[in-house]
Amino acid sequence: MKLKTGINLESVVWKRQAVVLIDQSKLPGQLVYIRCQTIQQLQKAIRGLKVRGAPAIGAAAALGMFLGVHKNKYSNFTSFKKRLDKLFAYFASARPTAVNLIWALKRIREVAVKNSSESISRIKKIMFQEAQMIIYEDKISCRKMANVAQKLIKNNDRMLTYCNAGILATVDYGTALGGIYRAKELKKKIKVYACETRPLLQGARLTCWELQKNKIDVTLICDNMAGYLMQQRKIDKVFIGADRIASNGDSANKIGSYTLAVLARFHKIPFYIVAPHSTFDLNLKKGEEIPIEQRDAHEVGYLWFKRPIVPKGVSVYNPAFDIVPAELITAIVTESGLITPPYSKTIKNHIGS
Amino acid sequence: MKLKTGINLESVVWKRQAVVLIDQSKLPGQLVYIRCQTIQQLQKAIRGLKVRGAPAIGAAAALGMFLGVHKNKYSNFTSFKKRLDKLFAYFASARPTAVNLIWALKRIREVAVKNSSESISRIKKIMFQEAQMIIYEDKISCRKMANVAQKLIKNNDRMLTYCNAGILATVDYGTALGGIYRAKELKKKIKVYACETRPLLQGARLTCWELQKNKIDVTLICDNMAGYLMQQRKIDKVFIGADRIASNGDSANKIGSYTLAVLARFHKIPFYIVAPHSTFDLNLKKGEEIPIEQRDAHEVGYLWFKRPIVPKGVSVYNPAFDIVPAELITAIVTESGLITPPYSKTIKNHIGS
Repeated sequence: MKLKTGINLESVVWKRQAVVLIDQSKLPGQLVYIRCQTIQQLQKAIRGLKVRGAPAIGAAAALGMFLGVHKNKYSNFTSFKKRLDKLFAYFASARPTAVNLIWALKRIREVAVKNSSESISRIKKIMFQEAQMIIYEDKISCRKMANVAQKLIKNNDRMLTYCNAGILATVDYGTALGGIYRAKELKKKIKVYACETRPLLQGARLTCWELQKNKIDVTLICDNMAGYLMQQRKIDKVFIGADRIASNGDSANKIGSYTLAVLARFHKIPFYIVAPHSTFDLNLKKGEEIPIEQRDAHEVGYLWFKRPIVPKGVSVYNPAFDIVPAELITAIVTESGLITPPYSKTIKNHIGS
Repeated sequence: MKLKTGINLESVVWKRQAVVLIDQSKLPGQLVYIRCQTIQQLQKAIRGLKVRGAPAIGAAAALGMFLGVHKNKYSNFTSFKKRLDKLFAYFASARPTAVNLIWALKRIREVAVKNSSESISRIKKIMFQEAQMIIYEDKISCRKMANVAQKLIKNNDRMLTYCNAGILATVDYGTALGGIYRAKELKKKIKVYACETRPLLQGARLTCWELQKNKIDVTLICDNMAGYLMQQRKIDKVFIGADRIASNGDSANKIGSYTLAVLARFHKIPFYIVAPHSTFDLNLKKGEEIPIEQRDAHEVGYLWFKRPIVPKGVSVYNPAFDIVPAELITAIVTESGLITPPYSKTIKNHIGS
């Protein structure tokens, strides 16, 4: 299995005592990397969406747990564990909706606890290896998802995607965009419409950028144009990612995903979600239980935080995510294959309980 | 009938030998008027959306016909008529979708032709009076529509609106927002969600501005949040304007209107269009025949024409309007009352053929 894309990017990596990230808030204008040498820098980068995308956040947080302990000394495991709990809470609070963040933090803490009889320096090493394993597994699972997803893509398909579920949202290759990259590798001719994704324009800034770099035919639209495209029969399939999937299949994703799902159903267009196992939260029965992050009004009311587009004093509503109910999802692509309805049964079979 | 709103604005007016317009591209930052002393200035203002909204464009173009002849001398009616035909084509080409523009131009040309036996200077005077009559009638019809529309609004209703169908889109008072202003005058408590309306943000910049000035409780959302609001049962009714309505009821309006109509149907929320008779085009059987204006990619790809949000070379699709099919429209509010399905019959009865 080849682990290279057309563009050799690593959105999250450990380098010279720091978590190094592509600063996604600067794209498409500049490709800039930021070095997070402290947990404060990293948490701020996660909160501020400099690193975003559920799997990428998970990878960054996993390295963050190591970043938070690697230079410090601890007299015993109890004090070490206390520090881990604090780090866990600190990073988990950065973004409430994406479960991959909590999943990765848990995994690092658990591996430490499991090895509590080892020396602290040995545990640190094990934690680092586990974080690297999360990153490696993410790369592998993206490839596996891509192989499953590409089978759903026919030659000459015209696809709609939303926000950014690509290389930048993962460590490498992407979730929803992975299938598109794989289809392209297999010489399928495809056309992608990318919704700009207000307020922070990840579709315009990030998806168009990485698709263009990978020579995929991409056309940018405003979010409000998706319905018109479907009405004109210009969309064959919708592919999006997810930030958290409940055990009944209800899926949280970037605000606007629900609208696309309703539009797809109305026009009888298949609607696919592509997400790794780490995005599933089997503790939750349904989507209503997923916490929806409310973000600052400034993101909407000021274009790119600078130019005001609304008079002072006007209320602004800015939920960062919405929930696509399971009944609007044609299938969910994961690294273990295609999950189809009835999700309450099939998700358990795939992910385990 | 009182002809004042809380804010005393005149979006289109003839003053000191010029067509004076509010420069809507400068709102909400600055309330600036522009004086169009030449037809070139006026046509540019229409093309560049400095004046926009189907009825307001109609009023501006009517004055434009007079502006184009008032200072010149003509030896006979034939040469005068030639000039009128040229002006007609010149203004009609500025915006292809809104039919009020063509309707107003036709009306001015027709009144000239009807009075061709009069002196040229007398015909000019008649044309000016006709343009003023269009403006006056627009004010009256907005009030009439508002009275019809307010009956659809209950106390504590939460309304969704799109783009700007208010004071700024007409000469005064508005179409879709008129009903809201009237309901407020009648002491009904209402809450309005305004979609920002990408790419040019008329909802954020103009609707929020005029609703706030009129002390209406308004909350701004991104266009992609409308579905989520409806899913949460936070919207009771949708009210929008229109740019052209075919004889079967299919209605062209700002891009994204179709998506809202599909969402409203999916959630069983009433979806109303408010538009004067001048917006109906009975020459067209159905919506497919309405020309859809394609606008510059720059509007989407550069935030407010300045900051690029997409890499160079990426294709951009930018239709300015879409078509809401008649079957998704609960009713159409006009100055002659409420038009309900089956529209193919009822529209003819209201508007005449």
